[in-house]
Parts: sequence; C-alpha cells; structure tokens
Amino acid sequence: MSYAAPLKDMLFNIKYLAGIDQIQQLPGMQDAGLDTAQAVLEEAAKFNEGVLSPLNWAGDQNPTSWKDGVVTATPGFKEAFQQFTEAGWQGLQHPVAYGGQGLPKSIGASVGEMQNAANMSFALLPLLADGAIEALLTAGSPELNAIYLEKLVSGQWTGTMDLTEPQAGSDLAAVRTRAEPQPDGTYKIAGTKIFITWGEHELAENIIHLVLARVNGAPAGVKGISLFVVPKFMVNADGTLGARNDVHCVSIEHKLGIKASPTCVLQYGDNGGAAGYLVGQVNRGLEYMFIMMNAARYGVGVQGIAIAERAYQKAVQFATDRIQSRPVDGSLPAAGPIIHHPDVKRMLMTMRAYTEGCRALSSVAAAAYDVAHHSPDAEVAEQNETIYEFMVPLIKGFSTEMSQEVTSLGVQVHGGMGFIEETGCAQYYRDSKILTIYEGTTAIQANDLVGRKTARDGGQTAKALALQVETTEAALTALATPDALAVAKRLAAARLAFVDVVNFMAANAKSNPNDAYAGSVPYLMLAGNFMAGWQMGRALLVAHEALQRGEDTAFMQAKITTARFYADHILTKVPGLRDSIVDGAGSVTALALDAF
Amino acid sequence: MSYAAPLKDMLFNIKYLAGIDQIQQLPGMQDAGLDTAQAVLEEAAKFNEGVLSPLNWAGDQNPTSWKDGVVTATPGFKEAFQQFTEAGWQGLQHPVAYGGQGLPKSIGASVGEMQNAANMSFALLPLLADGAIEALLTAGSPELNAIYLEKLVSGQWTGTMDLTEPQAGSDLAAVRTRAEPQPDGTYKIAGTKIFITWGEHELAENIIHLVLARVNGAPAGVKGISLFVVPKFMVNADGTLGARNDVHCVSIEHKLGIKASPTCVLQYGDNGGAAGYLVGQVNRGLEYMFIMMNAARYGVGVQGIAIAERAYQKAVQFATDRIQSRPVDGSLPAAGPIIHHPDVKRMLMTMRAYTEGCRALSSVAAAAYDVAHHSPDAEVAEQNETIYEFMVPLIKGFSTEMSQEVTSLGVQVHGGMGFIEETGCAQYYRDSKILTIYEGTTAIQANDLVGRKTARDGGQTAKALALQVETTEAALTALATPDALAVAKRLAAARLAFVDVVNFMAANAKSNPNDAYAGSVPYLMLAGNFMAGWQMGRALLVAHEALQRGEDTAFMQAKITTARFYADHILTKVPGLRDSIVDGAGSVTALALDAF
Repeated sequence: MSYAAPLKDMLFNIKYLAGIDQIQQLPGMQDAGLDTAQAVLEEAAKFNEGVLSPLNWAGDQNPTSWKDGVVTATPGFKEAFQQFTEAGWQGLQHPVAYGGQGLPKSIGASVGEMQNAANMSFALLPLLADGAIEALLTAGSPELNAIYLEKLVSGQWTGTMDLTEPQAGSDLAAVRTRAEPQPDGTYKIAGTKIFITWGEHELAENIIHLVLARVNGAPAGVKGISLFVVPKFMVNADGTLGARNDVHCVSIEHKLGIKASPTCVLQYGDNGGAAGYLVGQVNRGLEYMFIMMNAARYGVGVQGIAIAERAYQKAVQFATDRIQSRPVDGSLPAAGPIIHHPDVKRMLMTMRAYTEGCRALSSVAAAAYDVAHHSPDAEVAEQNETIYEFMVPLIKGFSTEMSQEVTSLGVQVHGGMGFIEETGCAQYYRDSKILTIYEGTTAIQANDLVGRKTARDGGQTAKALALQVETTEAALTALATPDALAVAKRLAAARLAFVDVVNFMAANAKSNPNDAYAGSVPYLMLAGNFMAGWQMGRALLVAHEALQRGEDTAFMQAKITTARFYADHILTKVPGLRDSIVDGAGSVTALALDAF
Repeated sequence: MSYAAPLKDMLFNIKYLAGIDQIQQLPGMQDAGLDTAQAVLEEAAKFNEGVLSPLNWAGDQNPTSWKDGVVTATPGFKEAFQQFTEAGWQGLQHPVAYGGQGLPKSIGASVGEMQNAANMSFALLPLLADGAIEALLTAGSPELNAIYLEKLVSGQWTGTMDLTEPQAGSDLAAVRTRAEPQPDGTYKIAGTKIFITWGEHELAENIIHLVLARVNGAPAGVKGISLFVVPKFMVNADGTLGARNDVHCVSIEHKLGIKASPTCVLQYGDNGGAAGYLVGQVNRGLEYMFIMMNAARYGVGVQGIAIAERAYQKAVQFATDRIQSRPVDGSLPAAGPIIHHPDVKRMLMTMRAYTEGCRALSSVAAAAYDVAHHSPDAEVAEQNETIYEFMVPLIKGFSTEMSQEVTSLGVQVHGGMGFIEETGCAQYYRDSKILTIYEGTTAIQANDLVGRKTARDGGQTAKALALQVETTEAALTALATPDALAVAKRLAAARLAFVDVVNFMAANAKSNPNDAYAGSVPYLMLAGNFMAGWQMGRALLVAHEALQRGEDTAFMQAKITTARFYADHILTKVPGLRDSIVDGAGSVTALALDAF
C-alpha cells in the first residue's frame, strides 16, 4: 500500500493557518518562507514515499530481532537510515551551528508527519534522537555538546531517552538507577531501564543514551533525579570511538505494534558501571527531561496525525475499488464501489475531518513555537510560548486518541478484509495503540492540562483562546453561508462548554482534586476537539476567500465541506463532555474500591 | 489471567430485569426458574473458568494451523471440545426432542457470555453450530432433520454458515456458488466460500456446512439463492459416516485476532461437485439464513459483552496490583495502587458501566425472545417478537462497538505493559475487532434498524419503547434520591433525542435515503446507548428496593453507583448524536467522490 504525502493540506496550513509569512519575518527565519516549505516538503515526500513507506509492512512482518545482545533491524532499515542521514533529514530543525538546517517547526512538523505516515517504527529513531539533541541543547555543557551534538544532528550517531524502570513508569519519582561520582568528574551508572525505543541497533555507529539516575545521596522523589549521557561506545578525545561502555540490551519486547522498532531492556553497570556524563546540574534531570519530553510529546501527537492520514488513504483506496451493493439512493444501476454508501462516506469523512483538524491544530501550535523561540519581542514570545504549552497536551492526547478511532474505522471500512493481516490496515490499528501510552499516557497529558496549563493561571490562557474563537465565530457569522453559520453555531456551543469546564477545573483542581481529575481526560478530549474545530473554522474562512480568488477550487471546496462535517459530527460531542465533567464528577470516584 | 464469571450480575438481570418468574409461567418453561438458572450458571462458570479460560492465551500464541488441507487446532482444544459436548453444553437451548435441554434464552445467553469471555475462539465453534441447528429447525425437512439435528445438538458433529464469497460479503446478492440438481433429488455444489469460521477441523467427527448457492437457472440477485446442507463426510442411511464429500479447506487466514478459530477458504466441487441437500424450498435460502443470522447476531452481541467483561476484570486486577504515584487527594501517604487515581477509576467505571448496560439489555431482549416463542397469547408473543427484533441490531451493533472501546481502555489501564503481548490484554483488543464486522457489520445492523425496524412501522415500535422509558423516568423521579434524579434527567434528555431521530428516520428513510442512512450508525449507537441506559435506570430502581430489604447491600449499592455513572458519562453522549444525525446529514455525503 503506497502513501502519498498530503502536500496540499500541509502547505495550506503552513500558509494560511500557521502564517509562514509572519514567521519568515522573524530573525534568522528569512529563508524559511513558503517557497522553502514547498521545496522541503516536496523533497521529503519523495524520500518518505519512495524509501520509508515501502519498508513499513516489511517491518511488521519481519520485526527487528534480538539475539545474544545483538539487535538486528528489519532488512532494508539500515540502508534506509543511511540514505536518511546522507540527505540530512535528522538535522532539519536543529541549529546550523551544529550542522543542522535550522528550519522552523512550522515546516519541520510536516516532514515529521510524512516520516511517521511512511513508517512509524523507523521514524521513532530520528524522533528520539531529536529528544536527545533537545536535551543537550537545553542543558549540556559546551564540552559535552562539542563531543556529541554534531554527530547526533548529522545522524551519524543516534539517541535514546531512558526514563522508565519496571517500578517507575508514569511515576518517575520511583526511578532507582544509581550514579556514582568518580574522581574524574564522570559517573558510574548502574540499573535497569525498560521500554527503551531503539535502545540498541546497528544502524548507526554509536548510540547516545540520555539516562535518568540518582546520584548517591540525592533526595528521594523527583528532586533527586539527574540526567546523564551514556554512550554505547566510549568516545575518544579525537572523536573516534573507543571501548564498548557497560550498557547492554538484554532483551526486546514482543509487542502489539511498531514491531520494527526494538523496545529494549537496557542493563547498565553489570560489569562495573557504565561511564556517564552529567547533563547540566545535579538533581535537575527531570526538568531537562521535561523539555525534551515536550518536544517528543508534540512529535507523538504528529505520529497520531500521520497514522490517521495513512489509514484514511488506504480506506479511501479500498472504498473506491471494492464493489458491493447498490447505493440506497439508486444513483447507480447496480452494485457499485462502496464509497457510494452513506455510512462508508461517514466513516471516511470522520477519518478525514479528525486528521485535518488535528493537523491544522499542530500546525498552528508549531507556529506559536517558532514565534516563541524567534521573536525579538519578549512579551510576544512569552504569549506564544504559553499558547504552545497549552496546546502540547491537546496535540499529544487528542491526536493520538483520535488516531485510534480513525485506524479502527479504517479497519471497519475494509470489512472482513480489514481483519486479515495481509490487507495491512490492521497494522495501523495495532501501531497506533502505543501512541496514547508512551511519552506520557493520555491521563498524564490531561493532568498536565488541568494542573500546569489550566488551574495554575486560573484558566486565563484557556479563556484567552476562547476569546479568539469568538472572533472566528463572528467572522463565520458575518460570512453567513449555510456552512459558515453551522460551524459558527457548533463552535459557539463548544466554546461555552469549554469555558464552563475551564472554570470548573480552575475552581476544583486544588480544593477538590478528585472531582477535577475525574474529568481530566474528558476535558482534554473536549479541549482538543474544540481547538481543532476552531482551526477548521478558520480554515473555512480562508478557504472561502481563496475560492473567491479562484484558487484551487476543488481543494478549497473540500476544505469547507470537511470543516462543516467536523462541526456537525465531531464538535457536537463537546457539550456532552461538559455535562459529564461538570455534573458527573462524583460518580467517577463513588464506587468502593472493593466493589470493582 | 483467570476469569471469574459475573454470576451475581447475570442472576440479578435474570431475576429482576428479564423476569424469569414470568418466563417460568410459560408452557414448557416450568423447570426454567431462578433455581435452574442459578444451578446452570454455576455449573457453566466452573466449566468455562476451569477448562476454556486457561486455553485462551494458548490459542493466541499457538494459533490453529493448516497444512495440506488438514486444520490442526491449538493443543488442548480437542480435549476441551470433548468435555464440552460430553457435558451437553451444545444442546442447552435446543429442543428436548433432539436431545437438547430446552432451556430459555434468558438463561442460555449468560452461558454463552461465559463461553466467550473464557475463550472467544473456542466459543465460535458451538455458536456456529447453533446457527446451523436454527436453520434446520426453521426450514429443514423431517428427513434432513432426522439425519442431522441430534448429532448437531449433541456436539458430535459441528456446523458452519457458508455465506461469503470473494465478491459477496455484505452483498449476498452477488453469491455465485452453483447448485446443480441431480436425478436423485440431491444437488452438486461448486464454488468458493471464504471467511468460514471453523470450516475445517478435527475436533468433531463430521462438519455440517450450511451453504448458500444458486440452483441452475435461478433468478439473479437475492431471490435466486437457496440453502443447502453439505456434510464434510457423507452420511450413510444408518447414520454412520461414508466417503469424504467434495469440500476442502484450501487455506486459512492470518488474522488480527481470534487466532485459534480457523477462518477457512472452502473449495466446493473441484472433483465433480459436493453432494448437497436442499434446506426448505428453492430460492428461499436467504430468508432462512436471516433466521439463523438473527440468532447469530444476538450471539455476537453477547461476544462483545463477554470480551468487555474479561477486559474489565483484567484491568481491575492490574489497577489493584500496580503501584504508581500518590493519589491527587493525598489519601495515601505515598505511591499506591493506580486504582486510587481518578482517571483510572473513570476508565474502569466506563468499562464496567458499558458492560453492565449491554448485559442488562441483552438479558431483557432474551426474555422478549422467550415470551415470543413460548407465550400462548399470540398478541403478546408478537409484541415481544417485535421488541426482540428491534433490539437485535442494537445488541449486535452497540455491544460490539462498545467492546472495542472497552478493550482499548483495558490496554490503556495497563499503560506500557498493555502494549506487550505477554500481558494478555492486547489479545482482547485484537479479538474484539472482528465483532463489529462479522455476521453483518455495524452498518448492516444499522441499515436493518433504520429500514426494517424503524421506518417500516413508521417508528411505532421505537416510540412504544420510548413510552416505557418514560414510565421508568417517572419511577426514578418519584424515588427522588440524587442518583435516581440524575439518571431520570439524562434518560429524559436521551429519550427526547431518540424520538427526534426516530421521527427523522421514519420521515426520510424512503424519500431521502442518503440523509437517513448517513445517520444510520449514529442512530444505532444512540439507540443502543439509550436502551442499555434505560435498563440501568430500571436496575437502579430494583436495586434500591432490594437495598430496602437488606439484600446483598454491597452489590446493590454498586449497581446504583454504576447506573449513575452510566447516566452521567455514557447517556450524555446521546443528545450530541441527535444533533449529528438530524442537523448534520448533509455534510456526510457532500464531498465530491474525487475529492476523497
């Protein structure tokens, strides 16, 4: 099954919703305009469609395997990764100073989507390297960065994020891996890390593990965790590789999906201790890790959009080819392609609208990130940072939850064939299931949304966004086409529900935490749905303008239709969620524990 | 992972919601009272917990395999099936005249749930034999039935339903398998059938295939399809087995789930034609098949409930064992079992409420079936038949759709461990995916609901049920506890939405079919949700009464809490669905086909 990057939709978002022209005005972004976006995306499409996509099914059929400590990737992955690094894709968004291309997230996010749509198992390798690079950029010393960054940015070496231990999953306070200071300023690391994605492989010369561990004598809990670099191979002063470090992959997991990406158990220090290098200051590891996790969380949200897009494309193809039954409206003389059946259209439209809505939201958030990181105006930068941070848990949580509904619909469109593995759509269904779990489960995102992103500022950021939505509603009402009015109506209802819930969260998060957190995930789903729906409303407005100008009529009409569908069929879920959250908190926690 | 049959909940439904005392008053049902129910269910629990459940994971790990036409079941299945038949489980609901026990569906449905919760792949074997038995009971000649029924009812032989062909899935009009009349009154059957569950195996002496085929010269389309019995081994006049018939399993599918149940491609007539025996009259095959499919559809709905229950039990166990983070309300001094976290409770309560709601609805429908089949009062029988038929697409469609949400939540509760196959919950997630597809996809159920069950009588049956719900609301309002009032409020809102949609369907199904069928699945989800919620409202009322009598306090309180949760968190989805269906039909079919 081939994949075609949705270039038009990506460029529409970049141009009209993310506002690439404004981003291009920012210092250092002069070359990051629409032309660059188009050129980069077209190149990325070629690479991902041509090189990574054909390996996706192979990765599911011949998973990466482990034997005697050696992890062997699915055939073809090594060559593909070589092409990937040679083309410079790893450095796309990283600083020019370290050999990257320094492109904005507004462009990079679309490239990330393509990689993940083409081959999610593969794309995890650069995604985690991105995390390691972010962590070093944030907190690494110049000496450490001089050794590691360039080679990570080039893709010559890859990176991992080593947080989880058997007893420490969502609860990183429980991390036990130890770091013993050595006289030379380095540390000996010892412990077991699990669920380490691409924690071992032979696709690159070296693997740079970013590891959470406790320095001897550190305080208990989250305030005693430090971050270390632990290379697979020691690095000599001249940058060449030395001896194998004391970190070994003792097994990989047998998983539901993303089977080509090895999920490793890494054993540190069984032979005297792995050499580790402190990143930043002692006991501030979690703080740094959160910076790199925020980047990764956005990236996982994009994975959701990516796999939803791929599932959608496959379902459309099947629905166009498969002949079964005459349409109910008699529009064909006999049995025809199932895409003629209203319920098949409903499924495909649901897949499409969710995907486009989440893509639009991620694009707008990427723009906020770029402004936050490049604007010379501190206030503007801070405002945008706040908006970006509010949106990250929505992008991570909502886009991944929706991806499971979308990939499930993808199987459903295929009927009985969907249940047969060779058809391929079941792989997307299985692969997507990890997305609501890793880099913080949906509940963890929702805690972040309720606590740090809503209650902490008394709901101010959320309500400022609601005010912006009101402006969009007003513009839709002024436009006054039936589609615009319908979208305005549903947006308004959703906004009122959203504000109610924001007030509820602000009022209860501290004083009545059980009630607030009982509704945390429904709030995330409500807010993600609403924010994505808002972007679809904005998209309708600009598509209408573009239509007036005669620009790409078919695309703009489809965008308006999809926005209308989103409002009618997805935004309509919002008021019910408000009722559950605000009126139904008590029944979530009422059952006695022994009655479960 | 062990399974414990939810005996208390099943018996609560049988006693209070299905009204077993009334069923016992019906002719021939004298021995089918609550005591019998309890004895049978306890025995079934022992068998399914002890024999079938331990083989469930084995079936996933060592799927049934095919080699040179021979299908070898997962080790242990053959012995288990022998125990199954020896204990007489196959005949539970079948006529005493053919060696069955003649128990009502009100009892049999719970036994079916246990079998499927214990081992869905295994349970498909008797489920399909049930279908074959139903078909023969409906339309088989006395001669045919004399040969086949007793051995099917005993489980000595098993049965299959052979409908699907590569070009004929949902669209049975496209069936091409041929039946050529022979001078002796038999037929030679030739063609290819696919997706035949347990179409070949060595667990029983013989396999009786019920096959849809076209007699030479029959009219095109659905009116030219006949039903045939095709035995794997020919049956001699004395009942002993003769030569192998010309039907062969040429391959089995590699599937997402239910891997221990072979899904066969059956080739008929490659060596001169398989001997087949007409069931009933020529060209009425589809009619008979629908009778047996209705039984099977109810059974598949129960499979959804079953796997949801099993996923729930496993998730509760994990949430009770897994220690991670301190509860937000500070109710524990340190990290504790994750079941203390509000969002974990929300997930578990969602799983529980869906499962209990659907179980209650299936129990009430079973009672309607029993009354319809045993009441001496023709009018009462017909009313109950109408109610049962209205509920079958809801039970099939809603219980299976909800089972996918529930099994997905089950994985989510397990966090990262959920994605690891050895944990076991991913199996339920994979297994459940077939349920919305086979025996008619959710869309096929929804077509049935809109066309035959709603529009045909102008929404009369649906609205009569809504009137009954109003009575329940009145009783809840009169009870006036906070829980009862909350449930009444949500039921009333759901009822108004339901009636709106019923009117919409009755008005549009013929005149404006695209609009009606654009909302068919949302209508099914709305109606299923509402009907199950109604049963939870009824359950609250009887649980309250039972509490007053001091009956099983913990259970009754939990039932009330679960009913309240259902109203707050599941019924609240209903009004939004109404808006989508009634106001949003146009946007489902608006996109140009070439814009997908």
